[in-house]
Amino acid sequence: MTRIALDAMGGDFAPQMPIEGAVLALQSLPASHDIILVGRRAEVETVLSLHDVPKGRLRVVDAPDVIDMAEKPLQAIRGKQKSSIRVGLEMVKAGEADAFVSGGNTGAMMAGSTLVLGLHPGVDRPAIGALLPTVSQPVLLLDAGANVDSTPRELRGFARVGSVYARDVLQRPQPSVGLLNIGDEEDKGNEAVRGAHALLAEDPGLRFVGNVEGRDIVNGDCDVVVCDGFVGNVVLKFYESVARLFAGLLEQEVSPELLQTPGMQRVFKILDYTEYGGAPLLGVRGVSIICHGSSPAHAIANAIAVAAQSVDSQVSQHIAAEMAEDGAVP
Amino acid sequence: MTRIALDAMGGDFAPQMPIEGAVLALQSLPASHDIILVGRRAEVETVLSLHDVPKGRLRVVDAPDVIDMAEKPLQAIRGKQKSSIRVGLEMVKAGEADAFVSGGNTGAMMAGSTLVLGLHPGVDRPAIGALLPTVSQPVLLLDAGANVDSTPRELRGFARVGSVYARDVLQRPQPSVGLLNIGDEEDKGNEAVRGAHALLAEDPGLRFVGNVEGRDIVNGDCDVVVCDGFVGNVVLKFYESVARLFAGLLEQEVSPELLQTPGMQRVFKILDYTEYGGAPLLGVRGVSIICHGSSPAHAIANAIAVAAQSVDSQVSQHIAAEMAEDGAVP
Repeated sequence: MTRIALDAMGGDFAPQMPIEGAVLALQSLPASHDIILVGRRAEVETVLSLHDVPKGRLRVVDAPDVIDMAEKPLQAIRGKQKSSIRVGLEMVKAGEADAFVSGGNTGAMMAGSTLVLGLHPGVDRPAIGALLPTVSQPVLLLDAGANVDSTPRELRGFARVGSVYARDVLQRPQPSVGLLNIGDEEDKGNEAVRGAHALLAEDPGLRFVGNVEGRDIVNGDCDVVVCDGFVGNVVLKFYESVARLFAGLLEQEVSPELLQTPGMQRVFKILDYTEYGGAPLLGVRGVSIICHGSSPAHAIANAIAVAAQSVDSQVSQHIAAEMAEDGAVP
Repeated sequence: MTRIALDAMGGDFAPQMPIEGAVLALQSLPASHDIILVGRRAEVETVLSLHDVPKGRLRVVDAPDVIDMAEKPLQAIRGKQKSSIRVGLEMVKAGEADAFVSGGNTGAMMAGSTLVLGLHPGVDRPAIGALLPTVSQPVLLLDAGANVDSTPRELRGFARVGSVYARDVLQRPQPSVGLLNIGDEEDKGNEAVRGAHALLAEDPGLRFVGNVEGRDIVNGDCDVVVCDGFVGNVVLKFYESVARLFAGLLEQEVSPELLQTPGMQRVFKILDYTEYGGAPLLGVRGVSIICHGSSPAHAIANAIAVAAQSVDSQVSQHIAAEMAEDGAVP
């Protein structure tokens, strides 16, 4: 039995959207997988009563507090013990749920996951893994914004947890790892990246393919691209805006009707981040999946599917094993 | 009389492409503008003889050495005194040319411009300004890769020189400046960016509009976006690859014919960086314009036009005035 806890109060359209996402997810999840909605019981049950819910596979756990999108993360997660994010994470910690998914305050999800679940031994910092669409298969970019000013050792940590995730969840048996840089040569880049290049190159557990430049990210040649969270966050958000730019240009220069054709809809479906589900916070003890605040129901359903795959493939346990080995080799 | 020196040996397709670019540029430049081709005289004149060249507006200055694309920049610029890059820059320094344009070794162009031309007093570091297409007018992103690990003060310098360039060359009378960051709030970001935010906010000479995120870059809301050269270079190269990604997806999911329609060609023309000419190296004493190594003739012609506008608008002199004031206010 796999139990996915979902923040029913998280995101711009809560609790409607998370609940719709949960109902949608149950249609494709195996019967062995349940969902726990964490949020204000009365509100959640009212919305839930409007849906046709499979018997026994969806239950509600009360969390009377809500962390707003604009609240200071650490303060909120410490102060609001009964918030949906805190309660959901505590359930994972206590073994009452196997994963937690939230489209709420991203900072609070990161701070809460680190504070409540803790980090696996050997992990210096958790990293957000984001999937970027390419012409072939998506590439895992990390860190996509959990940290800034990362050290070479932290960047190596991202490479390791990212490789485990790529193997377990993305089904890439021998994931290749590239280091995001501004040139091919190993002496290129800023101080952190130059240091990371040396560490990655000498790491026998990684299939390190060297530097990748901005233009290489969407080639699909690499399974995992490692970078500092500042750069990763800029790239991720920039990418998300590019589909909109393209749509705007097509509308302006060709015709609005073109956007409605089946072929064009397939193109935008490929470019649509919501198709790729939530972003895992890797390195924490347990499965914590972060969704966009603006996630529609199918994005939340996809994030729940990612959470289920993460639990079923035991990615967190495998990361623990990988990073514990690391503890021996500083 | 404006004299633009062009590196006839720079780029992957030299000397053919630069020469074609020069011939093309002369068709639209005012009669008061000449071009000086800097390179191996015999080679250049052989290619030149194949073209119909307007009398007296194109001359050749001999530079027997060539800096290869893969050479170590500083070593090459110091060692090869007779290279086309070195000779072209020395001509600007000596007042024998008003600008230098090259699609050759970018590192050598940066090192050479700094070494030969020097920096204006008050400028800590030169910055590459790159124009990114948006749905409305292009945005100037800088630094696009001249520096890494920039300090807050250096980032402020980029904002200042970028504002002058936007005013003079892009004709934005009161250019707005955004700071590339990973959130709205002023306490967001890495150490350098947090420091820069404070400096930009208190600078009376700038129209600072606060942080912009990755998704805001192509909105076209900002005239100038300031960032560290590592981030800027990743974003620039990533952007350049996105048009290719779109084209690949359209070909795969819709049809190759769609790419040939006039409307679609307009879209790709807007997204095509080669339409926006070369990237100025701002902060050096004089006009130095960097082109892609793979620039086709029309991209080189556009870069020559950018050089001409830079000279005619006296952007370098205005940057000098702007930054000299800065010297007084540390």
